[in-house]
Amino acid sequence: MSAAAERLIEIDAIMLEVGRSARAAAKTLALAARPAKDEALKAAARRLFATERQILTANEADLAAARASGVAASFLDRLTLTPARIKGMADGLEAVAALPDPVGETTAAWTRPNGLAIERVRTPLGVIGVIYESRPNVTADAGALCLKAGNAAILRGGTDSFRSSATIQSALAFGLAEAGLPEDAVQLVPTRDRAAVGSMLAGLDGNIDVIVPRGGKGLVARVQAEARVPVFAHLDGNNHVFVAAGADLAMARSILMNAKMRRTGVCGAAETLLVDRAVAASHLSALVTDLLDAGCVVRGDAETRLVDPRVTPATDEDWRTEFLDAIIAVRVVDGLEGALAHIDAYGSHHTDAIVTADEAEAARFLAEVDSAIVLHNASTQFADGGEFGFGAEIGIATGRLHARGPVGLEQLTTFNYRVRGTGQTRP
Amino acid sequence: MSAAAERLIEIDAIMLEVGRSARAAAKTLALAARPAKDEALKAAARRLFATERQILTANEADLAAARASGVAASFLDRLTLTPARIKGMADGLEAVAALPDPVGETTAAWTRPNGLAIERVRTPLGVIGVIYESRPNVTADAGALCLKAGNAAILRGGTDSFRSSATIQSALAFGLAEAGLPEDAVQLVPTRDRAAVGSMLAGLDGNIDVIVPRGGKGLVARVQAEARVPVFAHLDGNNHVFVAAGADLAMARSILMNAKMRRTGVCGAAETLLVDRAVAASHLSALVTDLLDAGCVVRGDAETRLVDPRVTPATDEDWRTEFLDAIIAVRVVDGLEGALAHIDAYGSHHTDAIVTADEAEAARFLAEVDSAIVLHNASTQFADGGEFGFGAEIGIATGRLHARGPVGLEQLTTFNYRVRGTGQTRP
Repeated sequence: MSAAAERLIEIDAIMLEVGRSARAAAKTLALAARPAKDEALKAAARRLFATERQILTANEADLAAARASGVAASFLDRLTLTPARIKGMADGLEAVAALPDPVGETTAAWTRPNGLAIERVRTPLGVIGVIYESRPNVTADAGALCLKAGNAAILRGGTDSFRSSATIQSALAFGLAEAGLPEDAVQLVPTRDRAAVGSMLAGLDGNIDVIVPRGGKGLVARVQAEARVPVFAHLDGNNHVFVAAGADLAMARSILMNAKMRRTGVCGAAETLLVDRAVAASHLSALVTDLLDAGCVVRGDAETRLVDPRVTPATDEDWRTEFLDAIIAVRVVDGLEGALAHIDAYGSHHTDAIVTADEAEAARFLAEVDSAIVLHNASTQFADGGEFGFGAEIGIATGRLHARGPVGLEQLTTFNYRVRGTGQTRP
Repeated sequence: MSAAAERLIEIDAIMLEVGRSARAAAKTLALAARPAKDEALKAAARRLFATERQILTANEADLAAARASGVAASFLDRLTLTPARIKGMADGLEAVAALPDPVGETTAAWTRPNGLAIERVRTPLGVIGVIYESRPNVTADAGALCLKAGNAAILRGGTDSFRSSATIQSALAFGLAEAGLPEDAVQLVPTRDRAAVGSMLAGLDGNIDVIVPRGGKGLVARVQAEARVPVFAHLDGNNHVFVAAGADLAMARSILMNAKMRRTGVCGAAETLLVDRAVAASHLSALVTDLLDAGCVVRGDAETRLVDPRVTPATDEDWRTEFLDAIIAVRVVDGLEGALAHIDAYGSHHTDAIVTADEAEAARFLAEVDSAIVLHNASTQFADGGEFGFGAEIGIATGRLHARGPVGLEQLTTFNYRVRGTGQTRP
């Protein structure tokens, strides 16, 4: 057998053991009462402060190795931990502890004519695999959400953050032990070998129930293509702002500028502006000029290019592109129908907004755009679990099954039916 | 290129076209109002009666071919249509028409401190693939449920029922056309070639959102192993009745007999009886004797075999087996803990019941058994969408994602978030 094949078998064996111990821990965690889970999170938060020195030392080693390999400055920034960022993680753990426990909640209850009382009750999903890049803080954020929802987590962070993530996972394990819960409930994949990701995507012999990828498009695309277990994710956030015939110009300008420029690198950022031909003469120039003046590159159709010589031609590819940058594609469309057709053809089913004072127009947009989040007279940048009031999120999903939109604690649970009778038999 | 490879490419092309036309139809159906969907179902029901002659003729041809190939009598029975069975299908269509429309229902609504009003609204899943055996009535049942929930359906029935299923699908297409809806919303796979199933399992280039297999374990296992899209299914219904320390003997006898013997071939049938050692002396003999006297084969552990010489030894394999027949495995366990451990080790997470007058014991069983359906003092044979009040079901799922337990209309929908603002931007 080749060395490579032997290595794969070895990694598979290591990962299978991770999966089995996670499953065993999940069974205990599923029955844990809220106080134990909250105490684990709070103890982990305290431990982050108590071990700040070790965390920063590990992070310095990660950073030194990453610098030596010549990574980009933005990569180093995401990898860097500071006392303030450690406090941010600890605050995050406390915030998750303060959230209501979704487990055990009765989401429906009814009684049948034969007297059977049926309840639908939230239960944990089981074991959640999280695959992320070299952002060590995700270790705390994702681990905390999985734990609070009663799940075990198998965390696989970027290899460049291995030492940092290990110290953070240690704090979570410490917290679990303090609360009398199994330390295996939040595990970090114990090898940097990339083959471990392949093992996770194959499902660890039924010991992973869902995988959440957190990172760039390359990571998400690989996970979606190869995973043999369900995935909560979105590949693209190619989001539209449609300025409709009934739009108030001042509101449209304010919403568009926020949707595009507040933060250009988030998945809720707007990537295409659609303007109804009916208001192009009155609205288009101001909308486009605002963006240009703010330093945004504008790629437009023929009519948009007439507005300002700085507008460059948009290609078909631009309508499909999530720029994640200060770039926007702009098109004049024929009414609501034109906007719906464009979004249907080019959209990514993530987040789309209409600006209009016409309620009927808004109602049709909200009913007919097939996206996880549709907004009327509000910025697309509200596409966020925190903004939805979910307290925290592990990501945003554009899949249609189970989780759609912001993935918070509730989406990390499943349910079962609990039926109480008095001796009923079926005729 | 070999003839076999050419055939695969041809089938893939045919199926891709089925998928694309289903997706297009799904977009129209998603926006269809309830009256149109209900009219389509009622018109299809009328059409079944109007074309009864053609349906029976097609069915006779299917039956003749199946007889010639020497299939089992039970297979022929499932394949056979009669005027009464056609009426049963038509009544089923009418019953689905009478069910509430799940699409558009607001399942949650709240307002954020910034004034954003967020609603969570049910929307259709999209395109549902149904793969079933030679039971032509599934064509009507599954097609109707998908249609009512606003989905397009791609139906792939057993090859031996091809002619019968085609006539039934024609009635559904007729109903859709009568109601002004796209006929492609309910399609039957237009080839008997088994390669079509492979195409469906690969997802038809993103044009199938979920697959529902309906049939025996071989079919379900293949679909679960090979599908690249989500599957709603259960492989096994290895269900337990636990007669606990607090069980009333008369109630336990009644529930057990119903759970095992009412119909032995349904997925909600009990397959293993667990009896608490505390009541073995008082309860075990009566429970086992009832079953034996009713013609049930009893395979028991050492203690159960002492009850009656007709009890044969149970093997480890028996604890894992869904007999779907008049056979039961019986074991004496040490209290609730023993029952929980047995079910955790051998169960299939489908349906499990406890019989006890002790509320605390029942509460622990309901909370700790990780099955889609858990019952207290009621027969496992209530595991059925109709019995739950769902009106109809397309199957029972033991997966943890999206659908769990009976899969009715609601489980054939997804949701999105609709956000209404007054110009809010994100700070």
